[in-house]
Amino acid sequence: MHSYKARITVTLRPSILDPQGKAAHRALTNLGFSTVQEVRVGKVVEMVLHEPSLEAARAAAEAACQKLLANPVMEDYAVTVRRVPEIAAAS
Amino acid sequence: MHSYKARITVTLRPSILDPQGKAAHRALTNLGFSTVQEVRVGKVVEMVLHEPSLEAARAAAEAACQKLLANPVMEDYAVTVRRVPEIAAAS
Repeated sequence: MHSYKARITVTLRPSILDPQGKAAHRALTNLGFSTVQEVRVGKVVEMVLHEPSLEAARAAAEAACQKLLANPVMEDYAVTVRRVPEIAAAS
Repeated sequence: MHSYKARITVTLRPSILDPQGKAAHRALTNLGFSTVQEVRVGKVVEMVLHEPSLEAARAAAEAACQKLLANPVMEDYAVTVRRVPEIAAAS
């Protein structure tokens, strides 16, 4: 078993209104950031997995997105996985 | 002026407890994802900026992090910027 780190980015689909992004955009404009055209806010989930292979780690991360982390009706997700040095499980 | 897309990832510092990550970890364990060792949840902010250069776009995105998007006491952030085709500002 090896350690892999999966980074999962979950973003609202482009057709879905993003009030948090709108609020951030307005706040940035009020702070003088006049070059900002659009802001969208999503979440990022970083997972450490012990799996036998990169492919297995990717499959587990994708399954986690589909079952728990993303709402497929409203959200898109992207997964990147890389191998990391063996580390003890964090508390 | 060109269009740039900045992707800003804001994560809790490693020393800061992440209850959202803990909850996701527990839920994944309950769903049978036994290989997951650690989960941390952060946010991702995607911004479209009109700036004269990549350097200017990066500087604006970094400034936005420091002034609004990240809490430097509790959070780390990372910024990546890439040029994108000219697009009209989204509504």
